[in-house]
Amino acid sequence: MGMIGGGTGSFIGDVHRKAASIDGMIDLVCGAFSSSAEKSIASGKALYLPENRCYRSYEEMIAKEKQLPEDVRMDFVAIVTPNHMHFPPAKMALENGFHVVCDKPMTLTLDEAVELEKIVEKSGKLFALTHNYTGNSLVKQAKAMVDNGDLGKIRKIQVQYLQGWLSTAVEATGQKQAAWRVDPKRSGIGGALGDIGTHAENLVEYITGLKIEELAADLGRFGEGRVLDDDGNVLIRMENGAKGTMSFSQIALGEENNLAIKVYGEKGSLEWHQENPNQLITHWLDEPVKIFTPNGNNLYPEALAVSRIPAGHPEGYLEAFATVYKNFATHLLAVLNGEIIEKPDYPTAKDGVRGMQFIYASVESDKNNAAWTKLS
Amino acid sequence: MGMIGGGTGSFIGDVHRKAASIDGMIDLVCGAFSSSAEKSIASGKALYLPENRCYRSYEEMIAKEKQLPEDVRMDFVAIVTPNHMHFPPAKMALENGFHVVCDKPMTLTLDEAVELEKIVEKSGKLFALTHNYTGNSLVKQAKAMVDNGDLGKIRKIQVQYLQGWLSTAVEATGQKQAAWRVDPKRSGIGGALGDIGTHAENLVEYITGLKIEELAADLGRFGEGRVLDDDGNVLIRMENGAKGTMSFSQIALGEENNLAIKVYGEKGSLEWHQENPNQLITHWLDEPVKIFTPNGNNLYPEALAVSRIPAGHPEGYLEAFATVYKNFATHLLAVLNGEIIEKPDYPTAKDGVRGMQFIYASVESDKNNAAWTKLS
Amino acid sequence: MGMIGGGTGSFIGDVHRKAASIDGMIDLVCGAFSSSAEKSIASGKALYLPENRCYRSYEEMIAKEKQLPEDVRMDFVAIVTPNHMHFPPAKMALENGFHVVCDKPMTLTLDEAVELEKIVEKSGKLFALTHNYTGNSLVKQAKAMVDNGDLGKIRKIQVQYLQGWLSTAVEATGQKQAAWRVDPKRSGIGGALGDIGTHAENLVEYITGLKIEELAADLGRFGEGRVLDDDGNVLIRMENGAKGTMSFSQIALGEENNLAIKVYGEKGSLEWHQENPNQLITHWLDEPVKIFTPNGNNLYPEALAVSRIPAGHPEGYLEAFATVYKNFATHLLAVLNGEIIEKPDYPTAKDGVRGMQFIYASVESDKNNAAWTKLS
Amino acid sequence: MGMIGGGTGSFIGDVHRKAASIDGMIDLVCGAFSSSAEKSIASGKALYLPENRCYRSYEEMIAKEKQLPEDVRMDFVAIVTPNHMHFPPAKMALENGFHVVCDKPMTLTLDEAVELEKIVEKSGKLFALTHNYTGNSLVKQAKAMVDNGDLGKIRKIQVQYLQGWLSTAVEATGQKQAAWRVDPKRSGIGGALGDIGTHAENLVEYITGLKIEELAADLGRFGEGRVLDDDGNVLIRMENGAKGTMSFSQIALGEENNLAIKVYGEKGSLEWHQENPNQLITHWLDEPVKIFTPNGNNLYPEALAVSRIPAGHPEGYLEAFATVYKNFATHLLAVLNGEIIEKPDYPTAKDGVRGMQFIYASVESDKNNAAWTKLS
Repeated sequence: MGMIGGGTGSFIGDVHRKAASIDGMIDLVCGAFSSSAEKSIASGKALYLPENRCYRSYEEMIAKEKQLPEDVRMDFVAIVTPNHMHFPPAKMALENGFHVVCDKPMTLTLDEAVELEKIVEKSGKLFALTHNYTGNSLVKQAKAMVDNGDLGKIRKIQVQYLQGWLSTAVEATGQKQAAWRVDPKRSGIGGALGDIGTHAENLVEYITGLKIEELAADLGRFGEGRVLDDDGNVLIRMENGAKGTMSFSQIALGEENNLAIKVYGEKGSLEWHQENPNQLITHWLDEPVKIFTPNGNNLYPEALAVSRIPAGHPEGYLEAFATVYKNFATHLLAVLNGEIIEKPDYPTAKDGVRGMQFIYASVESDKNNAAWTKLS
Repeated sequence: MGMIGGGTGSFIGDVHRKAASIDGMIDLVCGAFSSSAEKSIASGKALYLPENRCYRSYEEMIAKEKQLPEDVRMDFVAIVTPNHMHFPPAKMALENGFHVVCDKPMTLTLDEAVELEKIVEKSGKLFALTHNYTGNSLVKQAKAMVDNGDLGKIRKIQVQYLQGWLSTAVEATGQKQAAWRVDPKRSGIGGALGDIGTHAENLVEYITGLKIEELAADLGRFGEGRVLDDDGNVLIRMENGAKGTMSFSQIALGEENNLAIKVYGEKGSLEWHQENPNQLITHWLDEPVKIFTPNGNNLYPEALAVSRIPAGHPEGYLEAFATVYKNFATHLLAVLNGEIIEKPDYPTAKDGVRGMQFIYASVESDKNNAAWTKLS
Repeated sequence: MGMIGGGTGSFIGDVHRKAASIDGMIDLVCGAFSSSAEKSIASGKALYLPENRCYRSYEEMIAKEKQLPEDVRMDFVAIVTPNHMHFPPAKMALENGFHVVCDKPMTLTLDEAVELEKIVEKSGKLFALTHNYTGNSLVKQAKAMVDNGDLGKIRKIQVQYLQGWLSTAVEATGQKQAAWRVDPKRSGIGGALGDIGTHAENLVEYITGLKIEELAADLGRFGEGRVLDDDGNVLIRMENGAKGTMSFSQIALGEENNLAIKVYGEKGSLEWHQENPNQLITHWLDEPVKIFTPNGNNLYPEALAVSRIPAGHPEGYLEAFATVYKNFATHLLAVLNGEIIEKPDYPTAKDGVRGMQFIYASVESDKNNAAWTKLS
Repeated sequence: MGMIGGGTGSFIGDVHRKAASIDGMIDLVCGAFSSSAEKSIASGKALYLPENRCYRSYEEMIAKEKQLPEDVRMDFVAIVTPNHMHFPPAKMALENGFHVVCDKPMTLTLDEAVELEKIVEKSGKLFALTHNYTGNSLVKQAKAMVDNGDLGKIRKIQVQYLQGWLSTAVEATGQKQAAWRVDPKRSGIGGALGDIGTHAENLVEYITGLKIEELAADLGRFGEGRVLDDDGNVLIRMENGAKGTMSFSQIALGEENNLAIKVYGEKGSLEWHQENPNQLITHWLDEPVKIFTPNGNNLYPEALAVSRIPAGHPEGYLEAFATVYKNFATHLLAVLNGEIIEKPDYPTAKDGVRGMQFIYASVESDKNNAAWTKLS
C-alpha cells in the first residue's frame, strides 16, 4: 500500500494505517503524505519507511513506483486527503495501473464522481470507498436479515448521524480537521452532508438494499459565518414506498459519533447504534425482543465472516474499518492470483456516485425550501 | 369526580381512574360510562358506585348532579370517550358549572377546539387536558433546564412517538381501541397524528417553551384500506429558528410506546425516553455526560415537586398521569377555598387548540406533498 | 383498611396508601397513625378521614372497630411502623378477628416471627407481608420461567440490593428514616440486613423456588459509631447445590435502590433490575438474547395477570407494591364471599419467618468470621 | 517480535499479533508457533514469514535468533502458549538476552512465578504480562480517579468475570481452547480461576491500588467430570478494610465476556463494564451521575494518553490489548535508545506473582470450606 495524504497529525490517515494493518495482509510500503514535499518526507520517516519510498508528491510516487519491479512496488494507493484531492490522484493511479482505496465522499463534485466511475471501469482496477461502518459484523447481519426477507417489506426508516464537535467555531481556532470541512473549495458543496450525511445515506441503502428515490432536505448553517451546512433534517422516500427521516449534524452538542439506524418492516424491525456497535436489537410480531451480538448465536454467515474474536470481546471502529480493507485485500489477492470472487463485499465507485447524488439532491432541495428532489 | 366514558373494558378510562386515585385527593362519585345506558350502569356498579350515581347518559348525569347539594355532587367531570365525544359533554359540563378534565386530542375538529377554548374562558371553570407525559418528574426537569437557560439557545430537536400495534389490521379483528382510531367519524382527520402525534407536539412545545412555527409532513397510510394516517415523518421549524424532525407511527413494528425527545442548545443538550422515564441524559460543552434521576441530586424544584418516592424507586406512566390530576386537583382545591395559585401546572385548552392546529397543519401539508405549512 | 403507623411525613405509610388505592379495591377507613395520639389524629384528618375513625392508639382502633357493624368496620389492618412495632399490633389484630397486611421484616426477633406464624394459622385470618418486588410483572415471569423448567437446573445466582443513602451519618442529622434503622431497639439485630437484605433473600427464594441452605456472611459497619450492619457480602448455597453471591449495602455511595438478580441454569439464564423493571433479559444456549417486557410477547399468564396497562407504558415501584395489595384484596374478597382461591399469590407469614431466619443466620455467621451457617 | 505458540487456528496468538500490529511499532519477524515442528513452519508461512525465520521449536528460535545481527534479530518474544509452557521459554529467552511478553496466568505454579520474577530482575530485561483490560482508556481513568482521591477511601468492591462457554461439555467435543483449560497438567491448579479469575483480581488491584489481603472462596465444578473449578464465588477483604465480592464463572450460561467492576468510596463510586467499555459510570454525593467516555470531556491525562481515535468511535478488546504492547514497545524503544522511562505502564512479573498467589489462596480456601486465606 502507498498512501496519499495522512501526514503526521492527520486523523483519518492514521485510522487508515491502523485499519489496514490489523489483519496482517497489508504493509505500508511508500507514501506521499502531504502537499508539502518536506512534510511528506518527514512523515514517511516517522512511519519507519525507507527514505527512497517517501515521495515529494503523489505524482512522483505513482510515476516512480510504476518503474519498480512488480514484487516490490505498491499494489494499490490509499487516498486519505481532503475531498478536493480525491479525484486527481485516483484518476492518475488508476490510469497508471494501480488499484485504489479512497476515503469518502468520493470526489469534490458529482461530475468528477461520474467520471471516476467510468475511469475505474475502463481501468479494470479495483476501487474501494471506505464507508467503514458497513464493515461492522452486525451491519452485515442487518443487511442479511433484510436480504433474507426476515423483516418483510420495509415500511419505515430512521437514520441519523449526529456529532457536536462543530457546536462552537473550532475552525477559527486553527483546528485543521474543522478548517477544511467548512471550506467549499476543499469540501465541496456539502458540509456535514458530505462528511457524515453520506455515511447515513450509504448505511440506509446498504442495509435495506433499497435506493432513496427522493428527499426533502432542510439544511442548517448554525455556526456563525458558515457557508456550508452543519446540520440537516431530511425526509426520505425509498423506491419501494417506504418513508423515513434522516438527521445529521455537527452542531448537535454533546453527540460524539452517534450514527444509528432503525428499519421497520411488515414482519420485523431492527436497530443498530454505532456507538454501541456490538448489539443488534430486533423486534418481531409474535416474539420477544431479540438481541444479536457479534459471534453470538443465530447469526448469518455474512456476519460471522467478519468477526475476529469470540463473542463478548468488543470490536469497534477500527475493526469495522479494517474489514473494508480486508475484503478489498482479499479481492486484490484473488485478482493477483488469477482467481475470481463472486461478490466482493466492500463499497465501490458506484456507492461513491450515489453519495455525490445524495449531496447534490440535498443541496438542491434545500435551495427550494425542502422541495422533493430525486437522486440522480 | 364524575366520569364520562370509560366503561368496563375501556383502556383509558381505567387509566384515568387509577391516576386520579393514587394521590388520595380525588374520589370517583358518579359516572355515565357508556353511550349504552345499560352498559353505563353495569360499569358503575362494577366500580362499587351507588346505583343512584350510575347514570344512563352524560346529559342525565350533568343535569342530576347539578341538583345535588354542593358538598355531595361531583366537582368535575373526566371525559375519556373517543374524540368525537369530547366537545359535547365538555361544553355542557362547563356551561352547567362543572370543571372538566378531558382526554386528548381535545376535540374532533379545529373549530370545536377554538370554540371550546372560548367556552372555558367564559365559564371561568378549570379545564385540564391530559397530556400525561408532561407530568413526569424529568420532563419537568428538562423544561426547567431550558427555562433557566442551561442549554442556551435551542438549535435542534428530535422527537418521536413510535408504536407498532397497528402493524397488522387489528381493527378488523374486533379490537375496539383500534376500530375507533382508524375511523374518521370518531377520530377526526388525524389518525396516529391525533392519537400520539399530538403528544409529541405537546412535549416539544412544553419542554422548549417554543412554538412550532411551520412543518412539512409526509404522512403514511400503510395499513391496507386505512383512510387515516398510521405513520408520519415531519420536518419542523421552531419560532426561534431551531429545526428538527418529528416521527410518529403506529406501524413501527415492535415499538411499544416509544416517545422520546432530544433537544440541542448552544450550551447543552438533553434527552428523555418515555420507556425509560427515570433518566434524563444531558451533554455539555466542557463536562462529562450527566444523568439526572427523579429525586436524585441537583434537580430543580419543579422536578422535585412531583416525585412521590425516594430516588431509585421507579415511577412510571400512571404516576406521570396522576401528576396532571394532582396538579389539577390542587388548583381546584385552591379555587374552592378561594385561594389563588400563580401558575397552575397542567395542560389546558390552549394546549388543546395547539394540538388541533398541529393536526390540521400536518394534514394540509401532507395533501400538498409535504409543503411547509404554518400552525394557526 | 385501617392503618397502624404511617403518620404525616412517613415514607412507607404513604407508599402503602398509594399502593392500596391504585386498583380501586381498597379504601382507607380509619387509622392509628402514630404513637402520639395527637399526631395520629392530625394525620387522619389530613387524610380526609372522619374524626371518629382517627384513633389515639392501635389498641383503641382495634377495640372500637370491632364494635362497629360488619359492613362499616375495617376489614384488615395495614401495619407500617418500625420493626419493633410489628408484632404487638399484628397479634392483637389477628386475635380480634382482623386480617393483616404487614411491612417487612416481619418482626423484631426470630422468636416473634415463629410465634406470629402460629398466631396467623390459629386465627384463620389472612396475613400478607409486603415483599413488594414480587409484585412486578417480570418477576412473576422470571418465577414462571424457572417453575416451568425453561432454565433447567439452577447452578448460579447473583443478587444484590445496593443503596447509598447511609454513606454519611444522616442518622445524626435528624433524618427519621435513618434514625430508627440504625437503632437495634427498633430495628432488631439486622441493619441493612433486615431493611433490604431480606428483600434480596426473598427475591432469590421466590424466583428460584429454592431455599438458601447455608450462607457465609461478612457484614460491614462502615458508618462511624454504627452498631448494626450497613453493608454485607454473603456467599450462598442453595438446597439444590447452586451457589452464589449476595451483596447488600446502604453505604454503596450513589446507588439509589439497586436491587438486581441474575439466575443461571443449565439451559438458560435470566436477569432483572429493579431500577429498570420493565425488562427481563434472558440468555439461551442456542438462541439470541431475548428481552421480555410487561404485556409484551410470549409471557406466561402469571406475568400477564398483573399488568395494568399496555406494553411500553412503564409500571414502577408503586404498581408492584399495589399488586401485593391487589392479590391480598382479591383473596380477602373471595374469603368474604365464601369462595376459595387455590394459590393466593402474595408473601405470607412463612416468608416472614424465612426473612428472620436469614437475618439471624447472617449475624451468627458474621460473628464467626463468615463461617457457613444454616438457615433455620 | 518472535512468537512462541499461536499457530494456525489459535485464538490468543492471533489476538497478540493483531494487537501488536495496530500501532505500527512492532513487526512479527519470526516464530515457533507450535510444539509440532511441521505445524510451526506451516503457520509461519501462512503469516508471510520468510522460511528461515519459521522455527521448529522455541529452543531453536532463541538459539538461532541470538546469532543474528542485532538489527535483524527479534527484540523480544511473545509467549502465547497454554500455561504449562510459559515458564520454560520465558526463562530461556530472558537468560539469552531477549525481552519477554507473556500471556497470563504467568506460570503453571506459584513456585515458577516466584522464580520467574527473580529471573526477570536478574536479567535486566523487560517483561510484560498481558493483563489486557488494564489497557482500556477508561480503566486508566478509573485508576487515576482513585489515585487522585476523587472517590475518597474505598469501602466496597464488586468484581465479576462471567462467561458461559463451558456450560456444556465442550471439552469433550474436540474444542481445543476448552480441552487444555480443564486439564490441570496444562492449566495448573486453577480452572476459571486462572483463566479469568486472575483478570478480575488484577483489575481490582490495578484500579484501587489496594492489595487483596484475604479471601474466602467457594469454587464450583459444575461440568460433569471436571477436576478444576469452572465457577467461583469469593468474599474479599482489602488491605485498607474495604470488603467485597468477586464472582467468576465459565458456566454462567449466556454470558459472553462479562468482566465488570464497581468501586465504592466515601466520596464517590465508579462502575466499568468490559462489554460496554466506552462508558465509565460514576456517582457522587452531591452531583448527578457522570459518565465519562474515551477522549471525552474531563479525563485525566492517563486516560487521554491511550485513546487512538476521537470520542464516539468505539475502541474495543484489541485496542486495549494493543495498549499493553504499545506501552511495552515504547519502554523497549527507550531502553534501546538508552533513555529512561519513569513509570512504564504495563503489567509485569510482579503482577504475575500476585495472580498466582490469588489462585493458590483461592484453592486453599476452597479446600477449607471457604475459610479466610491470606494471599502470599
